[in-house]
Amino acid sequence: MLLTPRQEEIAEIVKKFQPITGEEIAKKLSLTRSALRTDFSVLTSKGILKSKTRVGYQYEGKSEKKYIKEIMGEVVSVDSNISVYDTILKMFLKDVGTIFITENKSLTGIVSRKDLLKIAIGNTDITKVPISIIMTRMPNIIYCEEHEEIIVGVRKIINHQIDSLPVVKVTEHKNKKSYKLVGRVTKTNITKLFLEYFDK
Amino acid sequence: MLLTPRQEEIAEIVKKFQPITGEEIAKKLSLTRSALRTDFSVLTSKGILKSKTRVGYQYEGKSEKKYIKEIMGEVVSVDSNISVYDTILKMFLKDVGTIFITENKSLTGIVSRKDLLKIAIGNTDITKVPISIIMTRMPNIIYCEEHEEIIVGVRKIINHQIDSLPVVKVTEHKNKKSYKLVGRVTKTNITKLFLEYFDK
Repeated sequence: MLLTPRQEEIAEIVKKFQPITGEEIAKKLSLTRSALRTDFSVLTSKGILKSKTRVGYQYEGKSEKKYIKEIMGEVVSVDSNISVYDTILKMFLKDVGTIFITENKSLTGIVSRKDLLKIAIGNTDITKVPISIIMTRMPNIIYCEEHEEIIVGVRKIINHQIDSLPVVKVTEHKNKKSYKLVGRVTKTNITKLFLEYFDK
Repeated sequence: MLLTPRQEEIAEIVKKFQPITGEEIAKKLSLTRSALRTDFSVLTSKGILKSKTRVGYQYEGKSEKKYIKEIMGEVVSVDSNISVYDTILKMFLKDVGTIFITENKSLTGIVSRKDLLKIAIGNTDITKVPISIIMTRMPNIIYCEEHEEIIVGVRKIINHQIDSLPVVKVTEHKNKKSYKLVGRVTKTNITKLFLEYFDK
């Protein structure tokens, strides 16, 4: 995500032809080796390439992930007529902090542990209340799509103070939008990515 | 956190003497400008320095934060004899996901929304149960100290699957350890830091 197009091209070349010398990479790009000096130092300092004396560059596998698709986790959802109590059970079973709610397989709502805790301490019989009563409803749900850049998702998480961002495929039929759930992005995903980038 | 000692030194020089040319920086380090070429390109590509034609390098303020102290948030804690119900109220009031519990101003326990939700849906009168009954207790609490590197905290958060890491000052008196709370580090802090590093 921090690479220039040329640096990404170099990384791709090394991935394909490793081990490969700087000279050979420069040749493939019709450039001189010295013109690429900065790119090589950025790529090695980021742990994407490794330079071995008398061998050349090797791909270190620490590629920079770029799209939501590459980091998103499994969808955890319930149908909108399920009770609050059963939603809480599902939340414990799947050990997630947020549950998505669907109607006809389209995302229609979202609830967090906070929402559930709030109703659980009230005087309501939570086995009788359907989750649809307390959920945050479309169009008030912030979502993202899997081809968007990770940083777009991170911005949404921080700016809207949300824990779990649904990843959807939006389709339209007779002027009615449908949001098919394909994944979720959480602060845990981002924290893991942070560790992946910076832990040496 | 990704800088070499020399790059950190350059950043410090620019912070102090900006605007300053590459030539002048090299002189201060008793090196040639060309020997620093890689360092300059790394520092500008990370947004730490900005190079202005005919002016020199300026410090962009996007320094890499290094220690827990620089990112930790406010402590939110309750005393151990407070009820589960009142702890939940405090959690809503402060809008946090985890509450720390103290005895004689020393950290003795921790509870998450998950723990509270679990007891809230049971058949317990949560206004009568003290929080100490359900909290996770020392020595089973993972904590960190403010002078530790951020990455150490991130590792603990991921490896132990925790949401909120207490930051403490440990003192010892007559063979008894005391943990004074000074802050907390959450996945939100790390996600914000991620945004700070990568959002251009």
